[in-house]
Amino acid sequence: MPHTNGSPTATGPRRSIELDSAEALRLLGSVSFGRIVFTQHALPTIRPVNHVLDGGDIIIRTHDGAALTSRTRQAGSPGVVVAYEADSIDPVTHLGWSVVVTGYAHLVTDPDELARYASMLHPWSQQTMDYAVRIRPDLVTGIRLAAT
Amino acid sequence: MPHTNGSPTATGPRRSIELDSAEALRLLGSVSFGRIVFTQHALPTIRPVNHVLDGGDIIIRTHDGAALTSRTRQAGSPGVVVAYEADSIDPVTHLGWSVVVTGYAHLVTDPDELARYASMLHPWSQQTMDYAVRIRPDLVTGIRLAAT
Repeated sequence: MPHTNGSPTATGPRRSIELDSAEALRLLGSVSFGRIVFTQHALPTIRPVNHVLDGGDIIIRTHDGAALTSRTRQAGSPGVVVAYEADSIDPVTHLGWSVVVTGYAHLVTDPDELARYASMLHPWSQQTMDYAVRIRPDLVTGIRLAAT
Repeated sequence: MPHTNGSPTATGPRRSIELDSAEALRLLGSVSFGRIVFTQHALPTIRPVNHVLDGGDIIIRTHDGAALTSRTRQAGSPGVVVAYEADSIDPVTHLGWSVVVTGYAHLVTDPDELARYASMLHPWSQQTMDYAVRIRPDLVTGIRLAAT
């Protein structure tokens, strides 16, 4: 029965424990990808991307045709408010963690910064990624799903 | 170097292949959880949740204090526009898939429906989940990240 999941009899109940922001950001930095969430034409939009942390900011790469590129370009300074989520949740036991960062995202245009990020962060697909986006965490929240 | 990831030399380049909506929805139904995305006080919001598919709709459970409950309650009919994302991406090779559904979400209040969903879908945490939300897929998109 693949559509009946998370049965307490199979895996036991779980406690949801709030993480402090330092621990949440550390966990986010321990994985290589997450999901960027923003509003596009008043609609909620989400894309999976890979990331690196740089001085406490989240860096992702993007390309000229991406909705996020035009959104951040339009927004100028201080940027556009986005959410960024990463998690590591076991598909069977549902134990793990989830972290959500909210903050301003802005387009990185400085050639030296772009070159540095290009060396740190390789795109998933063969598409050329000419741009990078930097997210400055404003609110960092997270939960750990633990066995009781 | 945990922050340098997705190196093409380690894993080879990947192709991003668009999925048709039937295949995308099938993949979403093959996993037990995803992420609900909505706008709350003009801010993008994301929460990991588990789901079941019911007649092509996505069902998740929620509780009285949840932002999603108040958002969908306020919205009434036809509901509030949300995005729902699920993925299965290998943390090392970054091969896998991601599916994004956009559609109207509305609060399920019918006691019989609620009882049925309570039997199909067990919450992750010990928190009481008195409500359910039904998302009617309007736009279903997905990509497969495949080796070249």
